Amino acid sequence: MKFYAGIDIGGTNTTLGIINEKGEVVETHHFSTRSYDTPEKFVEDVGNKLIELRTTYSLEGVGIGAPNGNYYTGCIEFAPNLPWKGKIALAVLFTQKTNLICKVANDANSAALGELKFGGAMGMKNFILVTLGTGVGSGIIVEGNIVLGHDGFAGELGHLIVMPNGRPCGCGRLGCLETYCSAGGIKKTYLELSGKELDPGKKIDYLAELAAQGDKAALETFDTTGRILGLALANVSALTSPEAIFLFGGPLHCGKYLTDPIQEHFTKNLLSIYKDKIKILTSLLPVNHSAILGAASLVKEPH
Amino acid sequence: MKFYAGIDIGGTNTTLGIINEKGEVVETHHFSTRSYDTPEKFVEDVGNKLIELRTTYSLEGVGIGAPNGNYYTGCIEFAPNLPWKGKIALAVLFTQKTNLICKVANDANSAALGELKFGGAMGMKNFILVTLGTGVGSGIIVEGNIVLGHDGFAGELGHLIVMPNGRPCGCGRLGCLETYCSAGGIKKTYLELSGKELDPGKKIDYLAELAAQGDKAALETFDTTGRILGLALANVSALTSPEAIFLFGGPLHCGKYLTDPIQEHFTKNLLSIYKDKIKILTSLLPVNHSAILGAASLVKEPH
Repeated sequence: MKFYAGIDIGGTNTTLGIINEKGEVVETHHFSTRSYDTPEKFVEDVGNKLIELRTTYSLEGVGIGAPNGNYYTGCIEFAPNLPWKGKIALAVLFTQKTNLICKVANDANSAALGELKFGGAMGMKNFILVTLGTGVGSGIIVEGNIVLGHDGFAGELGHLIVMPNGRPCGCGRLGCLETYCSAGGIKKTYLELSGKELDPGKKIDYLAELAAQGDKAALETFDTTGRILGLALANVSALTSPEAIFLFGGPLHCGKYLTDPIQEHFTKNLLSIYKDKIKILTSLLPVNHSAILGAASLVKEPH
Repeated sequence: MKFYAGIDIGGTNTTLGIINEKGEVVETHHFSTRSYDTPEKFVEDVGNKLIELRTTYSLEGVGIGAPNGNYYTGCIEFAPNLPWKGKIALAVLFTQKTNLICKVANDANSAALGELKFGGAMGMKNFILVTLGTGVGSGIIVEGNIVLGHDGFAGELGHLIVMPNGRPCGCGRLGCLETYCSAGGIKKTYLELSGKELDPGKKIDYLAELAAQGDKAALETFDTTGRILGLALANVSALTSPEAIFLFGGPLHCGKYLTDPIQEHFTKNLLSIYKDKIKILTSLLPVNHSAILGAASLVKEPH
């Protein structure tokens, strides 16, 4: 049996997982990202664990999913939420330490490759995965490969300007998709429609509970979100004509309250030549292990 | 020297060209598309000419650019402006007749491949070509290959909905990019801004003459067009992160009156990580031969 190491680097915690060919997570180890003031110390500790695991598993390679990870360069580049600044040559550092092949990608691209190799997109050649969470990201798969673009930073779906002069975005511009369809963007829509702030302790799923109780503003929030995201997905479809669009992330816990309006507005706005050809699906990656599965998929050949 | 045959099929006329490795058109022949009531008769005549030309040139293959041409199937599929209805298996018909390799693509995809193999995109791996004319089309090149999508119909940039509830489009929806940025769309903007219809006998270049004379509505028309197209191109760039975007077609004869506002609004709307990385360029394909060069590029390996 072949095994793959997947490392999910977050601003607070890092998870290292060992995944087998079937996509089963056989063990995980956790590290505190914040406690390493240099990437070298981080690679030393995580690398030692990999060397130890290698005595048990025949590892094919190490995949790393990280914010601002660049597949071309193997670097993390200027990630605002990590303790290490500038360009970090993570792939090289890990290969030097462990002698294993190492690849790096950003979270959304890893998630798309995870869907391709371990999830609902097995056998597909053209699809898009959209991550909804703190931000909105995407991985675009064309002919079985992730679209990286000239500089490695393709797939910034969350930064489509969908509303000229709309809500201010962290990127410094106005009206980006993620200001409306990230978890925070959805909550903001609810605030605008109801005049009430959602309890900050509550997750976005709470909006679905409110909708189930007939809360009008909650239902309208989902409709507004679906209208904006459905149109954006119809537009993206006209460019890459995918077989499916997978939705992934916390807001999907709202279930049909969220996905029904997305589907409705997607269908309504889709160019007729694509009608009934493009499925909107929910990611099949297990939520708790999606990030390490995505990372491990970077070093796994497709089925 | 290697030679390639390029066939440009239009609703009225068909041009067959012989192109050498340097992208020089060595001879052309013309056929009246309309005078053939069946595709079989058309292939018989054009095929006989190819067989004749083959005695002079060592032909590598035949590329065909046609409305609704599908690269995957080698068919023209339900093209509204051609005399032949339904699905026409053009590649198979030509190969049966001539024994030459034959590939089919739509006009915008052929133009993008023409730019890659004979034009300004030689050596590039990631770029987009945008055709402005009766409609607005595009060919998206990722890692040196044209993006065809699941069904062969990717690249419909002209049918991005850029203005919800905007101008009615031929596709049956509202607010598509091509209702604003096609030649007709630009003229309509001028009509809306000036209250005056452009002389239907005049080409779109006439608007540049008006602008040069200080016609305020003409200048505003270019600014509006640039605002809409510049934003759309910035959005598309966030998805595929190209090295360049080539603009192609009749409206480009308006020169800087058109391209300056496109560049201005593109730069203004571009996500900061792409700043100064993506060039807006005018196609280098010779206008009179672009369609046959594009078609011939379908059977030419890249440099």
